[in-house]
Amino acid sequence: MPTPFTYINAAMSIDGKISTRQRCQVRISGDVDFERMDELRASSDAVMVGIGTVLADDPSLTVKSDEKRAKRLAKGLDENPVRIVVDSKARIPTDADILRKGAGKIIIAVSESAAFDRVESLRKKAMVIMTGGDQVDLPELLSVLDEMGIKSLMVEGGAGLNWGLVKNGLVEEIYSFIGNLIIGGSNAPTLIDGDGFDEADMPTCSLISAEKMEDGVLLKWKLKNS
Amino acid sequence: MPTPFTYINAAMSIDGKISTRQRCQVRISGDVDFERMDELRASSDAVMVGIGTVLADDPSLTVKSDEKRAKRLAKGLDENPVRIVVDSKARIPTDADILRKGAGKIIIAVSESAAFDRVESLRKKAMVIMTGGDQVDLPELLSVLDEMGIKSLMVEGGAGLNWGLVKNGLVEEIYSFIGNLIIGGSNAPTLIDGDGFDEADMPTCSLISAEKMEDGVLLKWKLKNS
Ligand SMILES: NC(=O)c1ccc[n+]([C@@H]2O[C@H](COP(=O)([O-])OP(=O)(O)OC[C@H]3O[C@@H](n4cnc5c(N)ncnc54)[C@H](OP(=O)(O)O)[C@@H]3O)[C@@H](O)[C@H]2O)c1
Ligand SMILES: NC(=O)c1ccc[n+]([C@@H]2O[C@H](COP(=O)([O-])OP(=O)(O)OC[C@H]3O[C@@H](n4cnc5c(N)ncnc54)[C@H](OP(=O)(O)O)[C@@H]3O)[C@@H](O)[C@H]2O)c1
Repeated sequence: MPTPFTYINAAMSIDGKISTRQRCQVRISGDVDFERMDELRASSDAVMVGIGTVLADDPSLTVKSDEKRAKRLAKGLDENPVRIVVDSKARIPTDADILRKGAGKIIIAVSESAAFDRVESLRKKAMVIMTGGDQVDLPELLSVLDEMGIKSLMVEGGAGLNWGLVKNGLVEEIYSFIGNLIIGGSNAPTLIDGDGFDEADMPTCSLISAEKMEDGVLLKWKLKNS
Repeated sequence: MPTPFTYINAAMSIDGKISTRQRCQVRISGDVDFERMDELRASSDAVMVGIGTVLADDPSLTVKSDEKRAKRLAKGLDENPVRIVVDSKARIPTDADILRKGAGKIIIAVSESAAFDRVESLRKKAMVIMTGGDQVDLPELLSVLDEMGIKSLMVEGGAGLNWGLVKNGLVEEIYSFIGNLIIGGSNAPTLIDGDGFDEADMPTCSLISAEKMEDGVLLKWKLKNS
């Protein structure tokens, strides 16, 4: 089934961490990377995060630049791309920033294990897509999104959602900015967590580009098996 | 107290892992990186690993190239750099490759918590340095090594030893080759594990160089606070 062009964009430390062991957000990149990320958002049909990221960081996922939002409007698009949260049990707080801030469509992807009343109350604030039994069925979700006309999907983490998507072969490219700091910690989230691959199943990539940016490096990878 | 010029050399996946969750060694880099690593070994006064790496990979840490060993001999050096294992409780098996293979000095760094009989039996195979109560006192160990004339120390992992050294401000440079594969896993060892830093204490680095090598990228970082 067709799925959108799906890519992960993330900032990590020298040692592969995307936040601290307490899941506290860390400023890993600077203004240039922020600008680049905002441009990616503005040029994508949709952006997606996992519920872990919403609970930890409470991002709004809106396009920050007035100019970029105006450009989208001028093209007949919503100010912001469709914003999607992958949240099997509908745990998202109803006052989460993503539900309160910014114009445009919001989708909460839940599974059949979500409580009925939570799903009903979410329907007042967002579109709800239900797939999967215990957890969201990501291949099915992405094919529904594709049918809805979402052809480019920017994934903004975190570690668990990235794993789910990569494991299911749904990711085409990974852009990782490596900032000039060390976070450390065997329990800090990394770019891709989850169970991890056995050697025989590890996806390989080709390096699209490696470029110095501010105090770090931006690496772009293309997955070979996607 | 003076300590050797200490640098970490490691190979990691796109997502910062240095082996699988089962701590199985993975071929992350290719022949060019292998050659580079062998050259680093040959040009260092000593190489060091943690006991976790010995138990997982059983490396001999010898210089692999005949030519490079011959060059060392011609300079009046031992064939191999001093090979050091950081092993608080003297857990190293007496038949470990590092104790059996290759010419040159071997040091097992233990702490006072190591069992007497284990230490005594190790003394037959290697030089034993005892520092620290429960765990090896790394600052003290490095200053003893410096006094012994070890002025350059290549650290070859793993995740726990790297953490111990970085936490104590003992590491001057980090060379990380990022290979073109995804390992994943919240329990897989990363470049730097341990407890992890709080945001206020995170060491920052400056990027010495970023260069494409084979299918990946070699990043060299200089720690600012060392
Ligand atoms: N530096 C960066 O670029 C960056 C970007 C984003 C986030 N982060 C950091 O990442 C951390 C959050 O990462 P995280 O791993 O805790 O959370 P996450 O990846 O945002 O969300 C993971 C959650 O997604 C849900 N999910 C639903 N269906 C899934 C499926 N099929 N596969 C996988 N997950 C599925 C699961 O919970 P349910 O099953 O209950 O729904 C899972 O626990 C935070 O510390 C945040 O600061 C960093
Ligand atoms: N890709 C690569 O470049 C690369 C290189 C090396 C290793 N690896 C992988 O790394 C994994 C091993 O990593 P690891 O973290 O388990 O083991 P490790 O870093 O090799 O050894 C850690 C151990 O060192 C000992 N230690 C003694 N004093 C210490 C101190 N002051 N601070 C920190 N540690 C101290 C501790 O055990 P005691 O206190 O009991 O002595 C600790 O458990 C393996 O899977 C291996 O394949 C990968």
